[in-house]
Amino acid sequence: GTPTIPVLEIFGPTVQGEGMVIGQKTMFVRTAGCDYRCLWCDSAFTWDGSAKDLIIKMTPTEIRDELRRIGDNRFSHVTLSGGNPALLPQLEGLVSLLRGEGITIAVETQGSRWQDWLAEIHQVTLSPKPPSSGMATDWPVLDDIVAKLSARPAPFAVSLKVVVFDEADLSYTRQVHARYPGVAMFLQVGNPDVRRMDIGHHAADLLHRYEGLIDRVMSLSDLNDVRVLPQLHALVWGNRRGV
Amino acid sequence: GTPTIPVLEIFGPTVQGEGMVIGQKTMFVRTAGCDYRCLWCDSAFTWDGSAKDLIIKMTPTEIRDELRRIGDNRFSHVTLSGGNPALLPQLEGLVSLLRGEGITIAVETQGSRWQDWLAEIHQVTLSPKPPSSGMATDWPVLDDIVAKLSARPAPFAVSLKVVVFDEADLSYTRQVHARYPGVAMFLQVGNPDVRRMDIGHHAADLLHRYEGLIDRVMSLSDLNDVRVLPQLHALVWGNRRGV
Ligand code: SF4
Ligand code: SF4
Repeated sequence: GTPTIPVLEIFGPTVQGEGMVIGQKTMFVRTAGCDYRCLWCDSAFTWDGSAKDLIIKMTPTEIRDELRRIGDNRFSHVTLSGGNPALLPQLEGLVSLLRGEGITIAVETQGSRWQDWLAEIHQVTLSPKPPSSGMATDWPVLDDIVAKLSARPAPFAVSLKVVVFDEADLSYTRQVHARYPGVAMFLQVGNPDVRRMDIGHHAADLLHRYEGLIDRVMSLSDLNDVRVLPQLHALVWGNRRGV
Repeated sequence: GTPTIPVLEIFGPTVQGEGMVIGQKTMFVRTAGCDYRCLWCDSAFTWDGSAKDLIIKMTPTEIRDELRRIGDNRFSHVTLSGGNPALLPQLEGLVSLLRGEGITIAVETQGSRWQDWLAEIHQVTLSPKPPSSGMATDWPVLDDIVAKLSARPAPFAVSLKVVVFDEADLSYTRQVHARYPGVAMFLQVGNPDVRRMDIGHHAADLLHRYEGLIDRVMSLSDLNDVRVLPQLHALVWGNRRGV
């Protein structure tokens, strides 16, 4: 039969809250499973077993039908998120089905695994993880993925995005930017509390941290051609899921 | 002698708070003068006479020197803002001087006037004004400007950005997007109080309005391929000037 995809959430349309297409109207498909265990993961339920019973194995057609059931004709963009969607070779079927319907597709992955279908994704965000995550970057693998994705013609685009919590993360970010100077570079302020539900104070704290990150980046001449962004969904909805 | 440019502010580096390169590290050069009188203009001091004595007539070289004095080597991107910078044919000298130094340039203009130097700008944001502004759009002029800027090859880019306060503005936005379907479209939530200095409440109010605009756009199938954004500088710094 058709290979199935482990899905945890399908929701939208909403706005993409971060990165290279921040603000874009999009649907989200969140897959289960990750090869990393970031200390501050805001989607730990995709890999820590806590939502194991909510995982549904779906065929590409079933996912497309569910997108249409909840999004109807009110979307033309889909974001594949995780976990790490690049663990799943069987996403190829979904990517080609959606592309055949004229849908633009974005993916976020840490850049630890290649899949051939990544070449067909319009907007790939590679988000290598800084020291505060507790993870180590496999540079040769990332080099290869960046090279493959950068070689594609427009409108196919790739960007790097690093979450920054502290000075060690900022050093890591500078290292990433120096290694891939031609790739669009996004710095994202870290969310220090992925459980806090007091939206007002959460937003104020995140904006304060965002201002601090701006100050640091503005002082560094090796980070001139970069973009510094908060997570808009965290500002608007706090840590609520499915918005 | 060299034609001079009426300048009101030169500041940075800071982040671009809105539109197609939101988050980009950039310097700002704000020129004086506007052919519009938007009711909610957040830069009315550029045209209402209140800052008349602060206008300095500067040559391109003087502007470049001032950018280097305050930004040193900590920038590679400059944003020309107003007022309406497209009133000034003499910006051509500045544009070519900055481009010669490898600087990427962005401009925001309402699209009411053409200047040949606009063709040399890497990121042009055209921001036609909706009904709440009290201004009327000259569609044939805008058609011509959109056509000229859209015809340029990458990395030259153009986008449309409309500020939305109410339902009439949203209707206008839909009209703009339908007229120029191939041009990247940004909706920006309006800032209802350009004088309020209580940043905490200002940010909370803006985020609430942003959520409301998201809800409306998500419901409309003719606004699928759009991006909806707040003004990040208004969230972080409120209505403070020069940041
Ligand atoms: S790579 Fe992403 S999903 Fe995986 S653990 Fe890290 S933050 Fe979580
Ligand atoms: S076009 Fe821009 S600068 Fe001119 S009045 Fe309107 S908002 Fe103000």
